[in-house]
Amino acid sequence: MAYTEVKGDALRALQAALGLEAVQGDEEARFAYGHDETEGLSFPPAVVARPRTTEEVAAVVRICAEHGIPITPIGGRTGLSGGALSVFGGVGLALDRMNAIVGIDERNLQVTVQPGVITQVLQEAVSAKGLYYPPDPSSRGSCTIGGNIAENAGGPRAVKYGVTRDFVLNLEVVLPDGEVTWTGANTLKNATGYDLTRLLVGSEGTLGIITKAVLRLVPLPKETRLMLVPFSSAEKACEAVSATFRAGVTPSAMEFIERDAIAWTMKHSEGLPSQISTVPGAYLLIEVDGDHADALMRDCETILGVMEAHEAGEVLFAQTSAEKDALWRMRRSVPVSVKAHSAYKEEDTVVPRYELPRLLAGVKEIGRRHGFCSVCYGHAGDGNLHVNIIKGDLSDAFWEHELPKAIREIFQLTVSLGGTLSGEHGIGWVQRQYMDIAFNTVQMDLMRGIKRAFDPQGIMNPGKVLP
Amino acid sequence: MAYTEVKGDALRALQAALGLEAVQGDEEARFAYGHDETEGLSFPPAVVARPRTTEEVAAVVRICAEHGIPITPIGGRTGLSGGALSVFGGVGLALDRMNAIVGIDERNLQVTVQPGVITQVLQEAVSAKGLYYPPDPSSRGSCTIGGNIAENAGGPRAVKYGVTRDFVLNLEVVLPDGEVTWTGANTLKNATGYDLTRLLVGSEGTLGIITKAVLRLVPLPKETRLMLVPFSSAEKACEAVSATFRAGVTPSAMEFIERDAIAWTMKHSEGLPSQISTVPGAYLLIEVDGDHADALMRDCETILGVMEAHEAGEVLFAQTSAEKDALWRMRRSVPVSVKAHSAYKEEDTVVPRYELPRLLAGVKEIGRRHGFCSVCYGHAGDGNLHVNIIKGDLSDAFWEHELPKAIREIFQLTVSLGGTLSGEHGIGWVQRQYMDIAFNTVQMDLMRGIKRAFDPQGIMNPGKVLP
Repeated sequence: MAYTEVKGDALRALQAALGLEAVQGDEEARFAYGHDETEGLSFPPAVVARPRTTEEVAAVVRICAEHGIPITPIGGRTGLSGGALSVFGGVGLALDRMNAIVGIDERNLQVTVQPGVITQVLQEAVSAKGLYYPPDPSSRGSCTIGGNIAENAGGPRAVKYGVTRDFVLNLEVVLPDGEVTWTGANTLKNATGYDLTRLLVGSEGTLGIITKAVLRLVPLPKETRLMLVPFSSAEKACEAVSATFRAGVTPSAMEFIERDAIAWTMKHSEGLPSQISTVPGAYLLIEVDGDHADALMRDCETILGVMEAHEAGEVLFAQTSAEKDALWRMRRSVPVSVKAHSAYKEEDTVVPRYELPRLLAGVKEIGRRHGFCSVCYGHAGDGNLHVNIIKGDLSDAFWEHELPKAIREIFQLTVSLGGTLSGEHGIGWVQRQYMDIAFNTVQMDLMRGIKRAFDPQGIMNPGKVLP
Repeated sequence: MAYTEVKGDALRALQAALGLEAVQGDEEARFAYGHDETEGLSFPPAVVARPRTTEEVAAVVRICAEHGIPITPIGGRTGLSGGALSVFGGVGLALDRMNAIVGIDERNLQVTVQPGVITQVLQEAVSAKGLYYPPDPSSRGSCTIGGNIAENAGGPRAVKYGVTRDFVLNLEVVLPDGEVTWTGANTLKNATGYDLTRLLVGSEGTLGIITKAVLRLVPLPKETRLMLVPFSSAEKACEAVSATFRAGVTPSAMEFIERDAIAWTMKHSEGLPSQISTVPGAYLLIEVDGDHADALMRDCETILGVMEAHEAGEVLFAQTSAEKDALWRMRRSVPVSVKAHSAYKEEDTVVPRYELPRLLAGVKEIGRRHGFCSVCYGHAGDGNLHVNIIKGDLSDAFWEHELPKAIREIFQLTVSLGGTLSGEHGIGWVQRQYMDIAFNTVQMDLMRGIKRAFDPQGIMNPGKVLP
């Protein structure tokens, strides 16, 4: 597919459907909506369309279907795999104006939202009613629910509560032919036909455009305890992760942060407990939550026993909610701090959690062999390790031509350990070239068949997910 | 599709692939494998094939694909929607010989099983290692994991832990062309391509045959508390359900049982606490679980407060594990007891849980209008109400011709309340005629497109799910 302009009849039809100001073809808008947080890539759409309603989204899709114009749905532009990049031009369909919380159903513990709602805004709105929406990407202050659903976003709390997919009950979707449909029912259980809802989740905008979502909520836990556990060796920290679950405790967060990530982050963080001064090999940031303080205390004792058995240093408990906030702010700012330090490429590897030490050791070995440094952190409780390859002084030629071979080795290692390419960032544009490592032609053909069943014309977010 | 015989070359090829004794065409085998627990229906396959390995399953499928013979996968034959019935003859593919627990991975809290493993056998095997597989259908003593996955089975513990779909990490599947493939990876998170794993779960054997499953486990909770709560009105009992969650407690089971179901069941049950003597309007059976006895006690106090506010009678706590077992046995024997009382039809309605009182009242009103009695029970915490329509003295003519109209009204009510046709039994053969109530042609076309992508020849469990 070549870069597709939006001109003439198609442009006039879009303008008639949405109003002139909602169809933006100027450089500023096109470049503003032409990137996400993936490695500085820029793919501006030919025009940006910014509908306000489901009907307007459907109108845009019908016009594009008629003229064979590619459509790229665009959320908070915080994606890390390039899913929202308009790689073939066409219409960049920004959902940022559809940002209403339609209703919080306190009687059924559900919330209905439009896709442009910022994740943190949703979390705070339901929290005010004693309810909890756990999926919690680091970018929660700027990412949107629509994007979270499209990419099946995770975050620290997935280890206890599950990922975005586990909280989506029902979706209103505009299909690639402009039809509007719901994918299921507003029920906790559903064994009625194929599960279109969970198929749409994580499909990265390639099967349809989410225009409304009914999400499950849970009671807000009354108490949390947060501890930072230093280890002299990153491998020991990883080993302590699976041992914690085997000891019978399921933390509400179990994050791994390697030495360099902490060191770079501390420069950018304020309000951290003063005891975090010397930097060890790695830290685990561990949270438990629940309704009963004494039960949490005993969970913490069990965890401390496991940590001690894995040669942890002195455990730092957050004493106040300000200290908790500072520790979480530190964790959330790791990606930004790494980025501030150097250009980098991030891989979203995931393995069964006991394999983490082997994954980490393997990544370092591949780095030594190819001559690059990496900084690793991530959701260790889920076996989800973000591998950040640091550009530093490496040549552009190496970065362009040699590095992909090393990344390929990292993914081959991941898959050989029972894991796969992405735990929560999606495949999008930049990881497509590695899909053959995770899937053979049989599996790829099934996925292509599903794509064709939804989008025979191939206009919905083309160039993504499927190589 | 007409009834398909298996003869000549096809039969000889099956016999060559599996051995003579594993391809059974005698009346006894055909009838034994020609039913499940759905309303006394009998659809014998032309032959029963009983493979021992994935390779043998693949061989059977290749032979059937070559000769255009329909294949019906058969598990524990405990299904309640006719999913395992060989409605067009052909090969009944029984997975009962593939019943090995391949391995319990204690380090990653995972287990790999063949499809023919009985659910209770799996639960007990992992429990011996301090691990827990929560999905818990009433038929757990005879149903199999393969069938549970195919139908996306639920059970009482789904309210806290989720349904079968939430525990399946990865599946080995024989596709309708005989190819063998895995659907994903053995990881807790996965954002790598379309979610083939969760699409296969609940697809009722229409997309492929599950030959191996990797399941997630959780630590076994150390403590449970179980209480039986009487209500003079079924509606009040239903109201208490959603109020419990709103009070911040998530029970590990929250079952509703109407008066008649209890009365009929008590005749068949032994060892029940003596206090269950007079029968009120309805009972709730409520369980909480966790690791800390005092925390559970406080959860119970919160629940008691909610029950009192909804005019509950005297709450009976199970004092011993024998009493717990007796109460659970009573709950599990409700379906059998209803069946012993009369012929019946069971509908697996599900709504958002706050709508339960309206669903129940509506079902009774429809019954009064059409002249039938119903006994309702089910997983109230999930909004999943099993409506048992009792044949009693009703004429066969009414049962055949009038009742489907009434059932249609029940499902229309269910859908109007935000619910759908089946919470956990699946659509199978008997509920297909009602699919138009839950789905319009747009949704049905998507499902048909998915079916075609997997099974263009239409040989895999034809006649099921899709009308």
